[in-house]
Amino acid sequence: MGLLLKEIRRNPLLWLLAFVPAVFIVEHLKPEAGTLLFVLSVLGIVPLAALLSQATESVAAKTGDSVGGLLNATLGNLTELVIALSALRAGQYMLVKASIAGAIVTNILFMLGASFFVGGLKHHTQQFNAASARLQAGQLFLATIALLVPSTVGGGTAAPDAAFAQTLSLYLAILLITIYGLGLLFSLKTHREFFTAAEQHGEEEHETWPLGLALGILSGVTVLVALVSEVFVASVQEAALAMGMTDAFVGFIVVPLVGGAAEMASAFSGARKNRLDLSVGIALGSATQIALFVAPVLVLASYVLGPSPMTLQFWPGAVAMILLATITASFVSNSGRTAWFVGVVTLAVYLTFAIALYLLPPR
Amino acid sequence: MGLLLKEIRRNPLLWLLAFVPAVFIVEHLKPEAGTLLFVLSVLGIVPLAALLSQATESVAAKTGDSVGGLLNATLGNLTELVIALSALRAGQYMLVKASIAGAIVTNILFMLGASFFVGGLKHHTQQFNAASARLQAGQLFLATIALLVPSTVGGGTAAPDAAFAQTLSLYLAILLITIYGLGLLFSLKTHREFFTAAEQHGEEEHETWPLGLALGILSGVTVLVALVSEVFVASVQEAALAMGMTDAFVGFIVVPLVGGAAEMASAFSGARKNRLDLSVGIALGSATQIALFVAPVLVLASYVLGPSPMTLQFWPGAVAMILLATITASFVSNSGRTAWFVGVVTLAVYLTFAIALYLLPPR
Amino acid sequence: MGLLLKEIRRNPLLWLLAFVPAVFIVEHLKPEAGTLLFVLSVLGIVPLAALLSQATESVAAKTGDSVGGLLNATLGNLTELVIALSALRAGQYMLVKASIAGAIVTNILFMLGASFFVGGLKHHTQQFNAASARLQAGQLFLATIALLVPSTVGGGTAAPDAAFAQTLSLYLAILLITIYGLGLLFSLKTHREFFTAAEQHGEEEHETWPLGLALGILSGVTVLVALVSEVFVASVQEAALAMGMTDAFVGFIVVPLVGGAAEMASAFSGARKNRLDLSVGIALGSATQIALFVAPVLVLASYVLGPSPMTLQFWPGAVAMILLATITASFVSNSGRTAWFVGVVTLAVYLTFAIALYLLPPR
Repeated sequence: MGLLLKEIRRNPLLWLLAFVPAVFIVEHLKPEAGTLLFVLSVLGIVPLAALLSQATESVAAKTGDSVGGLLNATLGNLTELVIALSALRAGQYMLVKASIAGAIVTNILFMLGASFFVGGLKHHTQQFNAASARLQAGQLFLATIALLVPSTVGGGTAAPDAAFAQTLSLYLAILLITIYGLGLLFSLKTHREFFTAAEQHGEEEHETWPLGLALGILSGVTVLVALVSEVFVASVQEAALAMGMTDAFVGFIVVPLVGGAAEMASAFSGARKNRLDLSVGIALGSATQIALFVAPVLVLASYVLGPSPMTLQFWPGAVAMILLATITASFVSNSGRTAWFVGVVTLAVYLTFAIALYLLPPR
Repeated sequence: MGLLLKEIRRNPLLWLLAFVPAVFIVEHLKPEAGTLLFVLSVLGIVPLAALLSQATESVAAKTGDSVGGLLNATLGNLTELVIALSALRAGQYMLVKASIAGAIVTNILFMLGASFFVGGLKHHTQQFNAASARLQAGQLFLATIALLVPSTVGGGTAAPDAAFAQTLSLYLAILLITIYGLGLLFSLKTHREFFTAAEQHGEEEHETWPLGLALGILSGVTVLVALVSEVFVASVQEAALAMGMTDAFVGFIVVPLVGGAAEMASAFSGARKNRLDLSVGIALGSATQIALFVAPVLVLASYVLGPSPMTLQFWPGAVAMILLATITASFVSNSGRTAWFVGVVTLAVYLTFAIALYLLPPR
Repeated sequence: MGLLLKEIRRNPLLWLLAFVPAVFIVEHLKPEAGTLLFVLSVLGIVPLAALLSQATESVAAKTGDSVGGLLNATLGNLTELVIALSALRAGQYMLVKASIAGAIVTNILFMLGASFFVGGLKHHTQQFNAASARLQAGQLFLATIALLVPSTVGGGTAAPDAAFAQTLSLYLAILLITIYGLGLLFSLKTHREFFTAAEQHGEEEHETWPLGLALGILSGVTVLVALVSEVFVASVQEAALAMGMTDAFVGFIVVPLVGGAAEMASAFSGARKNRLDLSVGIALGSATQIALFVAPVLVLASYVLGPSPMTLQFWPGAVAMILLATITASFVSNSGRTAWFVGVVTLAVYLTFAIALYLLPPR
């Protein structure tokens, strides 16, 4: 417990933990204050996500490389998953789909762009391993193609057939999870030497916690995230209305920024320390995981938790944004060299998406 | 003749030749057994395609590099061309277009993906010449763009104008064949040194046949392919209905796998021998040839053989798949390095396309 | 004045200046001769654009690197801007948008393709700096994405909302100009060493003029371009009708070829001298400038000059062509090596676009 308090003292992000009890108090006293609850729950999720991420790393460090890598890879987007599951239970499929699409786009355009920008402000030009970045960008591209098939292949047929989309989404979910499993086999067993460099750097950064504490925090904080997420999802529509935001904007922009805050902090700090390989690895790896693991798990979970099965059909604008973001990942990682302006342009693309989604009339 | 028998004994693929007479016998005795005829004709075309491909190589080896290269390049997709011509004569334009689109997609995603996979199972990582792969992927991309112009540029105009699509397709067919001719000039005359390495490897593999035998097989087998193709095309609709497959699935998946079986065998064997340049060259070269030669020849042939002129307008899903496949070719060939998982992901994209086409409700 | 005459004697392109007075004479005597006026004004703009470009370079050479670079970058597409402003005042938004899209596509496909072709006819293979070409292609890609957001992100929503597109276009115009300004800061201040090589080559080519003469020509010729552009815009519809061309074809193909003739001359001459970095830099730099500077300036100017605010919404075919052209830029610049056939294929894509636009039925 002393270790946890020490960590809280060291890391200003964790001071936001004060908002977690505030969420529950306000929900009890003023359940009708939707906008306030929305803001409080957003502020509460950020430090919880940071704790989750550090607990996962600590458990991973103790359990040896293979199990640890598996944990790191599987729980890396736990916050996004828990939030999406809450939205799924509430039947808010538009919010779920927007948050899947948005997490991919945000990880690529915002996390990578801002890493290049903050790194470029400190270092004149920065180099990273182009070969491994290309491999990751290629995997990410193929993963998103597979994800987008239900939205594109059926294009132009007479009526968008609901049964077709549903069956296809179910098969694809199983296929995507299979690829995800094979990917873990690849990166943790057969070809781990490709991936070790980046992880070693990552582990230097924090003191790790003892296994008991880490496991306790992992399970306790997951429950807290779930509880806060429920308040978040329940308040989001009222708040969005009050603040003039659409569902698409909240799912696409707000949820990924909130859920990924902890990873972003690591990526930006890597960039400033001139370890761009770390930043590129986190951004592309996390986007790949959303496409290959989080999205199909949500499809499967919708059969159990949701009011009706969820498909992988995205609206055309989301398809365009995901494709453009993945092609951007390739452009940007291609040369292995970056400077601040590359970050500016990447962020600008993100900003244009955000502005467009903000202005988009609700459907 | 002894040589041919020796080859048949050596190559188990050729044992399937037994299905060729079976096709004609069943067609004579039970012409109404559509599904059986479909299966038999598929099994019969595979060994005929293998014979054609070896005969072409033998003639090429005897006639010197320039004429030989020309033959190899022009007759490389002879099987696909003959099948498509049979479908053209029967007026089955959906099948023809699906088989053009499918041949490009299958060559890239399945042939390249499976090469990376089987090669990767044997070798930890494999290298290939990234510079020449990029050049080929770039040519392929530009060739497919030119092919897709009638389907994209007119997009969004009021009514899809039939006369516009027809005139445009005719002009484009002439342009594409011109580019194809210039490409032969480039690869066989002015810049042949770029392409020699891969071909030398290719020629080591087989004993070549004497010119007379090779020419005899080339013409005799072409006639046989044409005859079997007619049975295939006549039975495909009944069989597709019986087996629950759409026209799009048969054209896109079945025809290219059947017609390209021989090339695939070469590509996979190259990959296992760690000669990935050979596999990449076959896959991308064959896809380029479909776009620049087979497709425009079919458009021109439709004026003579078909009930009405065929256009180059593809349905939006096919456009999406072709574009995604060509961009994939670039991603995958970009780094010049591969491992088994790259093959898995490429195959997975192919599989998602196949599943989607299989489930697609018939229009 | 003697210098100007000497330049005119040396450069045959400038003999076309004789058509400039002819435009005004014919407009005075036969204002109804639309087709003749169209042809004369096209022929008159070409040498004026060449003079503008050389005057800009001369001013830039005299005013030191930073101010000079700024001028060069800002006035490089002055002719296109002036023509588009004339069309804007006349309310011909289709022509304006087609010329924005067309200038991007023409600079990439025609200027780059023809450079590779004419360079390749003289040199067996040509090398250029792939790293810097990739950086430029990446920036261009991101710039065009930002430009295309209003046309893609809204896709699939119920009704294309006019107010949405207008507000979004205004915000994006401001964002694009901001990025443009930051890009100048990047290339002229913080990272000028990336860009110097190409410019040094460029400056060797011409004798520069004294500052007074250069400034005089710059302002005088700009006025002339504006006057001739008005005749051009006024006559274009009648001429297009008479010559069987659509608005889209004139804006997309004719205007960019006319406005960019001077730059093209420099790019082709660079390619023949085996200085492909110069050609690639001009082509990609000019396309980037259209997306980041010319297009947003036209949106802002439409609030002052036009009958109603202009949006950045392009028709789907234009979106497809711009995207395909920018991806082509990446494919083609990726390997850093080229030969004549790469130029042929790039030009062929341009030709397919041109044929399609020519045949497109007017809407």
